[in-house]
Amino acid sequence: MKKKKATKSPRRAASTARVLDLDILPELLGYNVRRAQIALWRDFLRTVAEGEIRPGMFSAIVLVRANPGISQIELAKELGIDKATMVGLTDRLEDAGWILRKRSREDRRRHGLTVTSEGQKIYRELKREMIEHERKFVELFNATERKQLIALLQRLHARQE
Amino acid sequence: MKKKKATKSPRRAASTARVLDLDILPELLGYNVRRAQIALWRDFLRTVAEGEIRPGMFSAIVLVRANPGISQIELAKELGIDKATMVGLTDRLEDAGWILRKRSREDRRRHGLTVTSEGQKIYRELKREMIEHERKFVELFNATERKQLIALLQRLHARQE
Repeated sequence: MKKKKATKSPRRAASTARVLDLDILPELLGYNVRRAQIALWRDFLRTVAEGEIRPGMFSAIVLVRANPGISQIELAKELGIDKATMVGLTDRLEDAGWILRKRSREDRRRHGLTVTSEGQKIYRELKREMIEHERKFVELFNATERKQLIALLQRLHARQE
Repeated sequence: MKKKKATKSPRRAASTARVLDLDILPELLGYNVRRAQIALWRDFLRTVAEGEIRPGMFSAIVLVRANPGISQIELAKELGIDKATMVGLTDRLEDAGWILRKRSREDRRRHGLTVTSEGQKIYRELKREMIEHERKFVELFNATERKQLIALLQRLHARQE
């Protein structure tokens, strides 16, 4: 349905594939980032863990694995999410048996997160599927364009509020 | 808390602002698009309609206003969202009194969407706030970079599945 058909019947063409007036949307950074995010999200759910995990969960496992003992606050800050979302995310990962909350030896009020051996296994599977998912989008760009896109996106998310 | 402080006490610095190992995340298109989307989303909620409307609702009002009689299917396709999400979105906009569902004269099974006069008013307010929101991010780039970023993002979301 995405490709425009040759106009056999003008009336039918008008109702099924008319060209929409997008007004200001195509010029907005916000609109374009959101559309790109939706496209990536859809393919992620199709390719990674059979839709069982969401992109934020993947990032969380990656960060906990690479930084054993990381706190929920550090994790939330790095992922740019709020405390409530973070607690929900940690609960889901703990319920799945992939991460553990452990009280810090240095600061008893602080809980550090670590990946379980089951979590390590999941990480390896997810990473393989993640690379498969990424490849479909990476191939749209040459190496310079890809680096450029990532650098420009980083400027967006590194912006101080 | 975002700026790194000068390291007065190494131990404190290590626990509050340690540099995380991000593993493969910084190289992933998906991760960078998602982080940019989160940054934009947070500022949108703060700047536009006092958090009362979400980015997808804004895009929907813009498209219905620019394309009177547009169907929910056309709208969903343009926004890259599924049918269930679209129905929820249309319901919210109709409940707010901003859009109307009207049966098409040419095809009685088809409902066309139009913006109400209240919706027109809201559109003008939202557009002003939207531009204020966008400006904060647009100013991170020069004109060439902005065009480049939008062109690269469009390639991501125009990808045929």
